[in-house]
Amino acid sequence: MAVSAAAANEATTSAGALDRLLDATRPGMDLVNAMILERARSHVELVPEVARYLIDAGGKRLRPMLTIAASMLFGRADGSEVNFAAAVEFMHNATLLHDDVVDESEMRRGRAAARMIWGNQASVLVGDFLLGQAFMMMVDTSNVEALRVISKAATIIAEGEVLQLAKTRDLTTSAAEYDEVIGAKTATLFEAATEVGAMAGGANAAGREALRLYGRELGFAFQLVDDVLDYRGESGVLGKNTGDDLREGKMTLPVILALQTATPAEREVLVGALGKVDAGEAQLMQAVAIFNRHDTLGRTIEQAGVHARRAREALKPLPPSEMKSLLGEIAEFTVARAY
Amino acid sequence: MAVSAAAANEATTSAGALDRLLDATRPGMDLVNAMILERARSHVELVPEVARYLIDAGGKRLRPMLTIAASMLFGRADGSEVNFAAAVEFMHNATLLHDDVVDESEMRRGRAAARMIWGNQASVLVGDFLLGQAFMMMVDTSNVEALRVISKAATIIAEGEVLQLAKTRDLTTSAAEYDEVIGAKTATLFEAATEVGAMAGGANAAGREALRLYGRELGFAFQLVDDVLDYRGESGVLGKNTGDDLREGKMTLPVILALQTATPAEREVLVGALGKVDAGEAQLMQAVAIFNRHDTLGRTIEQAGVHARRAREALKPLPPSEMKSLLGEIAEFTVARAY
Repeated sequence: MAVSAAAANEATTSAGALDRLLDATRPGMDLVNAMILERARSHVELVPEVARYLIDAGGKRLRPMLTIAASMLFGRADGSEVNFAAAVEFMHNATLLHDDVVDESEMRRGRAAARMIWGNQASVLVGDFLLGQAFMMMVDTSNVEALRVISKAATIIAEGEVLQLAKTRDLTTSAAEYDEVIGAKTATLFEAATEVGAMAGGANAAGREALRLYGRELGFAFQLVDDVLDYRGESGVLGKNTGDDLREGKMTLPVILALQTATPAEREVLVGALGKVDAGEAQLMQAVAIFNRHDTLGRTIEQAGVHARRAREALKPLPPSEMKSLLGEIAEFTVARAY
Repeated sequence: MAVSAAAANEATTSAGALDRLLDATRPGMDLVNAMILERARSHVELVPEVARYLIDAGGKRLRPMLTIAASMLFGRADGSEVNFAAAVEFMHNATLLHDDVVDESEMRRGRAAARMIWGNQASVLVGDFLLGQAFMMMVDTSNVEALRVISKAATIIAEGEVLQLAKTRDLTTSAAEYDEVIGAKTATLFEAATEVGAMAGGANAAGREALRLYGRELGFAFQLVDDVLDYRGESGVLGKNTGDDLREGKMTLPVILALQTATPAEREVLVGALGKVDAGEAQLMQAVAIFNRHDTLGRTIEQAGVHARRAREALKPLPPSEMKSLLGEIAEFTVARAY
């Protein structure tokens, strides 16, 4: 993979962007975090137990932070952005709970997946609870347009997950089809997060569209980098096991690109490892060696870079502001994670 | 169990009530059925395949029918009742898909459960899709109040399912706790179905409350009778296997009441069978014999009868109409199913 000095430099610069976004959105995120804790409550003990286990593990809360940031861009935030951000995070967590069941994952956010402790049943049902609460928080704002964005997103995300499921171990999956999968399963929630944020901030139609597009392109970049990191052995950072995608037979871009130009022998190795639940370190290393020979991890990052640039460009019509610059840097940071 | 001649007679009379409800709601239900088919579509082939498999198996569509009937009671239906009814049916089907995963059921509506054909994964995700589409149909009416009812229902239903899960094989489960379970997991959707129907029909606050209560009590009666039928060997009618509740360790009222007065020997038999996935015909017969000695199936039906009467009474404040009488008879029919 080609890591240029310039890129490494960019990584250092943009690493600070996330911290600055954290700082800039802190007042809003404090309210969001309080609402998240409040709405994870239930008189049925098992519900907050499972929900809090996942929520406390935290992650970066990037999606709700983007909602708050988007609302701040337009300077007329009316408070509904807190509900929207918390709803987006609940939807994300509901998806994670269901995904772990679908993927039979054992790890999530650096520790045992909820289903390994409470079983698949609780994961499915608490996911449903979080989805219901997400809609409740949206309803509390009485903003029907935002409700439309969020409920449409819920539908499209589920379709994307089903499409990915249908493409499991399908060696004929094209890069375009994979774009469709991640456009639905990942980019849709990023897109909804920034779009409803802009709406809460009082954006006009052009501002709303700019933020929608920004979120969508950012989501693509984010997922493509995740797909690369899955092969990079940073399970501590990601909270997933290295090579999970391979073991789950997921046709991500590094695999799709490799299959396009692989020799018959290389193809045999990849096909043998794809979807093999007990594929070990050796098989994983072999696959990564093939990726490196065809530079498919590097090419996937390049593709992520294209999306990050488009995200930046989407913000162009907006007047200059500190938040606008910061969101541009966040797009760079998303890709810089890969270095 | 005490089946009186009067009760048997009532069963015959009220059996016609469902047919008359079908007739009375047909124009509305034709629109609902068309919307259901339309909204089960997706460019992701597996989605309509799984959704249609469940939807085509049909069932009685009692819940959406109740929504249409409730809207007709008030004479000012504005068309939104079609969306509400279709949304209620989608929520119900989403719940069924997820329930089958949670309960590891093999049968549903008289044939193999979707998860036995397409796996748990597709059942979880297509359930999520249907839930998303349900909200979309609600959003299309721009009725925020109705959206509140439906999204709150989604949350409470999930809580009820989690509570039932937590109480699996819990021998200390009381009748009051079981009331809480079915109040949440079953009565809530019936209640939401009739309440939003009344709203679409232009009901005032009192009318809306009457229909809400009617639906809630009807839901209780419906579930209690279902619990009895689970032990009655009508798997053709129900589409479930006889004794599934016992094998799944579900603490339904017939079991709870039996444990209250069982001899130590009877208790041992029940405890041995509860949650035993491979419990056979002989063990099931033994359990039913114990239920009969303590008349717990009969007492459960009596309890259903109490709720059915309350459902009828809830309608009292409304002016007389054919639909009002019919809904009263439907409450009776719900219990008469048990005979």
